[in-house]
Amino acid sequence: MPRYKAIIAYDGTNYCGFQSQDNGKTVQGEIERTLSKLNNGKRIIVHGSGRTDSGVHAKGQVIHFDLDHFRDEEKFRHALDTQSADDIAVKSVEIVDEAFHARFNAQGKTYHYLVDYGKPKSPFTRFYAAFYPYDLDIKKMQEALDKVVGTHDFSAFCATGTSIENKVRTIYEAKVEEIGQDQLRFTFRGNGFLYKMVRILVGTMLKVGNNRLPVSEIDTILASHNRNLAGPTAHPEGLYLMEVYYEDSKK
Amino acid sequence: MPRYKAIIAYDGTNYCGFQSQDNGKTVQGEIERTLSKLNNGKRIIVHGSGRTDSGVHAKGQVIHFDLDHFRDEEKFRHALDTQSADDIAVKSVEIVDEAFHARFNAQGKTYHYLVDYGKPKSPFTRFYAAFYPYDLDIKKMQEALDKVVGTHDFSAFCATGTSIENKVRTIYEAKVEEIGQDQLRFTFRGNGFLYKMVRILVGTMLKVGNNRLPVSEIDTILASHNRNLAGPTAHPEGLYLMEVYYEDSKK
Repeated sequence: MPRYKAIIAYDGTNYCGFQSQDNGKTVQGEIERTLSKLNNGKRIIVHGSGRTDSGVHAKGQVIHFDLDHFRDEEKFRHALDTQSADDIAVKSVEIVDEAFHARFNAQGKTYHYLVDYGKPKSPFTRFYAAFYPYDLDIKKMQEALDKVVGTHDFSAFCATGTSIENKVRTIYEAKVEEIGQDQLRFTFRGNGFLYKMVRILVGTMLKVGNNRLPVSEIDTILASHNRNLAGPTAHPEGLYLMEVYYEDSKK
Repeated sequence: MPRYKAIIAYDGTNYCGFQSQDNGKTVQGEIERTLSKLNNGKRIIVHGSGRTDSGVHAKGQVIHFDLDHFRDEEKFRHALDTQSADDIAVKSVEIVDEAFHARFNAQGKTYHYLVDYGKPKSPFTRFYAAFYPYDLDIKKMQEALDKVVGTHDFSAFCATGTSIENKVRTIYEAKVEEIGQDQLRFTFRGNGFLYKMVRILVGTMLKVGNNRLPVSEIDTILASHNRNLAGPTAHPEGLYLMEVYYEDSKK
């Protein structure tokens, strides 16, 4: 049975995250439901590159699944796209090597995090950006971001309660820029991210930008491995999984 | 009693338009409800610069109302903003001359219309742009737009059933441009717009862009005064009332 790789986008507002769970609607559950319909009711298991939390969005989540061959892949993509809910889009579908695994083969990921710092809060980004209507020093935030680039033990930027032991990750790129009116965008590109790591990084950067944490403290926080020293976890609605990288793909 | 002018923004997705009606939630009704709360339960009538239809958005709708003086205008704006629903924002509030009327004094308006022409449809713009996944020749659309600039009888671009007799309006600016990935933005600035005029203009332009209507036909349609010759009414979710102009303000 051929293995398919698909790239999907979703508005996470109305989902309890990507991964299936006992209670609540999930993106994985929704895609599996559509695939089952297209497969004469037989269950198909979907594997994602990783979970995204409740309210978190994706513009480039990667999934894989095994399914009988469809003769026309574009027709299959179209069916999967249009028969899934309106808040899920299927951007591409292709047959890949049967050894491909969306999660285990992932070499890296890019996330965006959007902040609305306007007064008043924009009605148009209330589910699509975090609202932070306070003074923000972008230059200081960029200086702090420069300090997390590279290979570090990110224990201080990982939510407690995860079973993963090795918390060393490499961040290739970390930047913040103004986009449009009253909007900031953070970009994080790295070889992997711990549980809630991007949101804790952003929460810490906003504290720096608001002059409640000196830039130099980032080194101390990284070295401490202590989650309590980093800033709060930023809200889920600002976070977007933008791209997942695989071998023969850019890092 | 002082007269207040306020600039408001709203996500029109969940409203039956701006103007109060017997059935369904409206923006006017929502603002009047909040004002009444702030006015010890006494009813306040809100006047808008014009109605917007169900699903249409605004980033710069102007309203006026009469209300006892609040000592701190920014505190009043903040109360009105935060006590109204999350999909309505109150951007500014100021005391104006008691002769000011949001509708009768309006000198002109600017509208935007957003089109998502990506495949697949983006989950993030499903309520905020019209979906049109077909070939579009932007140069031809701009040529057609150039033909509607100026003073014309726009009867052919007005929904039937309106009581307004004089259908001559002046369009100062009409342009289309690519913004971001798979997104087009139309801009219309004029001294006034007839019922559904912007949406009929856009529906006609998309027909031109898709090579189903020659650019030269625009002159014929304008001269015909016949609604049946123009294109279809484009969907409401792409339309935004951006700004309303008053005397001493730019046109």
